[in-house]
Amino acid sequence: MDMKNLLDRRFRLLGTASPLFYEKPLHLVKGDGVWLFDNEGKRYLDAYNNVAHVGHCHPQVVDALTKQAKSLNTHTRYLHEEILNYGEQLTECFDQSLSMLNLCCSGTEANELALRIAKTCTGADGVIVTDFCYHGNSESISRISTAFMDLKSLSNNVAIIRFPDPYREKLQLHEFSNQVSNAINSLSKNGHKPAALIIDTIFATEGMPRVRKDFVQKAIELVRKAGGLYIADEVQPGFGRTGTNMWGYELYETVPDLVTLGKPMGNGFPLAGVVGKSDLMKEFGKLTSYFNTFGGNPVAAAVGLTVLKIIREEHLMENALEVGNYMQANLQTLTKKYDILGDVKGHGLFIGADFVKDRASKAPAASATHQVVNSMKERGVLISQTGRDDNILKIRPPMTFSRNNADFLLQTLGDCLDKL
Amino acid sequence: MDMKNLLDRRFRLLGTASPLFYEKPLHLVKGDGVWLFDNEGKRYLDAYNNVAHVGHCHPQVVDALTKQAKSLNTHTRYLHEEILNYGEQLTECFDQSLSMLNLCCSGTEANELALRIAKTCTGADGVIVTDFCYHGNSESISRISTAFMDLKSLSNNVAIIRFPDPYREKLQLHEFSNQVSNAINSLSKNGHKPAALIIDTIFATEGMPRVRKDFVQKAIELVRKAGGLYIADEVQPGFGRTGTNMWGYELYETVPDLVTLGKPMGNGFPLAGVVGKSDLMKEFGKLTSYFNTFGGNPVAAAVGLTVLKIIREEHLMENALEVGNYMQANLQTLTKKYDILGDVKGHGLFIGADFVKDRASKAPAASATHQVVNSMKERGVLISQTGRDDNILKIRPPMTFSRNNADFLLQTLGDCLDKL
Repeated sequence: MDMKNLLDRRFRLLGTASPLFYEKPLHLVKGDGVWLFDNEGKRYLDAYNNVAHVGHCHPQVVDALTKQAKSLNTHTRYLHEEILNYGEQLTECFDQSLSMLNLCCSGTEANELALRIAKTCTGADGVIVTDFCYHGNSESISRISTAFMDLKSLSNNVAIIRFPDPYREKLQLHEFSNQVSNAINSLSKNGHKPAALIIDTIFATEGMPRVRKDFVQKAIELVRKAGGLYIADEVQPGFGRTGTNMWGYELYETVPDLVTLGKPMGNGFPLAGVVGKSDLMKEFGKLTSYFNTFGGNPVAAAVGLTVLKIIREEHLMENALEVGNYMQANLQTLTKKYDILGDVKGHGLFIGADFVKDRASKAPAASATHQVVNSMKERGVLISQTGRDDNILKIRPPMTFSRNNADFLLQTLGDCLDKL
Repeated sequence: MDMKNLLDRRFRLLGTASPLFYEKPLHLVKGDGVWLFDNEGKRYLDAYNNVAHVGHCHPQVVDALTKQAKSLNTHTRYLHEEILNYGEQLTECFDQSLSMLNLCCSGTEANELALRIAKTCTGADGVIVTDFCYHGNSESISRISTAFMDLKSLSNNVAIIRFPDPYREKLQLHEFSNQVSNAINSLSKNGHKPAALIIDTIFATEGMPRVRKDFVQKAIELVRKAGGLYIADEVQPGFGRTGTNMWGYELYETVPDLVTLGKPMGNGFPLAGVVGKSDLMKEFGKLTSYFNTFGGNPVAAAVGLTVLKIIREEHLMENALEVGNYMQANLQTLTKKYDILGDVKGHGLFIGADFVKDRASKAPAASATHQVVNSMKERGVLISQTGRDDNILKIRPPMTFSRNNADFLLQTLGDCLDKL
């Protein structure tokens, strides 16, 4: 009744353009750490939401938010210390060359700005993207988000490369290298040079394939040789989630020219940004300017600073490694028991479980994945599905996820697979 | 010393792309109602910031923010009541036909979404904008923001119309009408039909000319006849600022197809949105989807709801009318004493004072305006300048601005004009 009423109000107000999770949607009223609670008091283990990076409603984040909102909340056209304290601590988490910063409100805005910097500094307008990616919802960024667009409408300044999933595709480095060269040549044929290669460094939408280091390095090398920059989209993998490093791009021992940040950055406060090499950021500053009304306001800076502090003090990156490895190992064990579980993907606390119709063909099992996502939710565990064939369980919990939480998730997954 | 240190740190970190106000920048540490305080405890009357719509650090806004951030902050893919409560109250402030809503984080994102809806629903891609406008900082929106772009790079799907400032330009309706027809024809010659006419309904960047009602109506009529929609950008004029109405478009007795909202909406919390006619929003929902990670999260909704409540309970629209009229009348009186003050523009608490070199030629006096903005700041009043010729004082204070505050502003302006 309550649900029907809420759904009626929602469709009347927000329509159907605003998507909802689950066959039977979830009405949430409370969050606490890794737990979410629905309107009937039922508890759900959150194994999906990376925005609540340090846990839902972390008291230190709420305190920082409250304290700063009580004191001052204005914009970056006035001087304020908090944004400098935050920016200095944030850029210290990067390679020394990545020393400058611009703040905005969303991952979309960050990718918009990064591309604008890349185009301004290179004088080129070509963009090389991966075959099944998502970088945001603005007009320009939608046009490079290959996962959710009609590829027939691809602009001729956009070229696509595909990083193979080692589980399904045996590709040699020279074959991949040819593919990148072809992408650059196709831009060139259309009169465009590459301004940038942009990569989600965990390949989240592709389904978290463990992409080979030398493949990523080769793509960057060839794009740079053609005059383009390397933009690492860390909106999903960033802030220690991979366990071994603060940033996904470090998995490939690469240093980007520009890095875009978002989702986990403010633990739910709309905070995002671009960190870049100083020569590029300075050049951009000489040629143009960028102002974002809410970007980097004192409240955003106070919250961002607190998120960094909690990651450090609660050893969340270390936790992501330890619990992530534990979960991956146990998922690997489940692959021996359940034929439908073909492969385990991802890094740290960003894990994919690859559902297949059978082990030999490795044919993607999207509808079984869908069924498992919905029945895990009924049993109190929130995850989602993604991937080129929509057959990858997407496990991306708050970074405070414990071994006990992992055990509950694994147990629930096992139960669901038994019933499949 | 402190200032030099802050500036050094800022330029090292943020570079020069991130603009600063004033010849000698202001280091702020505290806000309270209409007052801002610098690091030396000096108090400034804020007559510029419309983001702090209900006053800096309003205790009810801080409470709502804190309470919701403590309880739950997630996204719109789960059901949550607060967004429905907010959306219903918000859409009740509009004409009945404007009944549906999508929320996002910034005015830029709102204008991006509105144009996307317009293009999707009309199947056209032309845009008609005004001659000196600003609608945001993304790639697509930068390309229609005529005030801050190189007009030589104008895309051929963008056409410009100019709403005359009655103080400077005597234009007949039929002359203006021809101009709009020419804009539509120029799109047509390039193979484009208009998807939308987008107007900042207070013409803030143009310098707040009091545009004639019939001119606005005529432009809308002709664009609609050519198949295009009317988007009212209420990011600056909205939420009661004009004093007589909640929305700037009501000044012209028009009803838009889509309305974009931003700056004042969350009193500093990054909150923005698009309100639209249900047939358009439903059509858009059928053809595509839109998800914004932070847009309309429970904290944003709680803050938005509180801002609406304060506007109502503190009678801020009425205050904008009363204090706005008082300030406009007194500025008008000052025009008799100071030849440099040529005209008073704007509506309610969004006021422009037009600086001229002499009364006969009405030649814009930009550098005197600049001098007054900076010397008013030294005397404790914060305003800015804008306009086609950068000669318009931009007075746009928090909506709680009182007659006493207005007296202090007028007194300070008089002092500065005496010293000019």
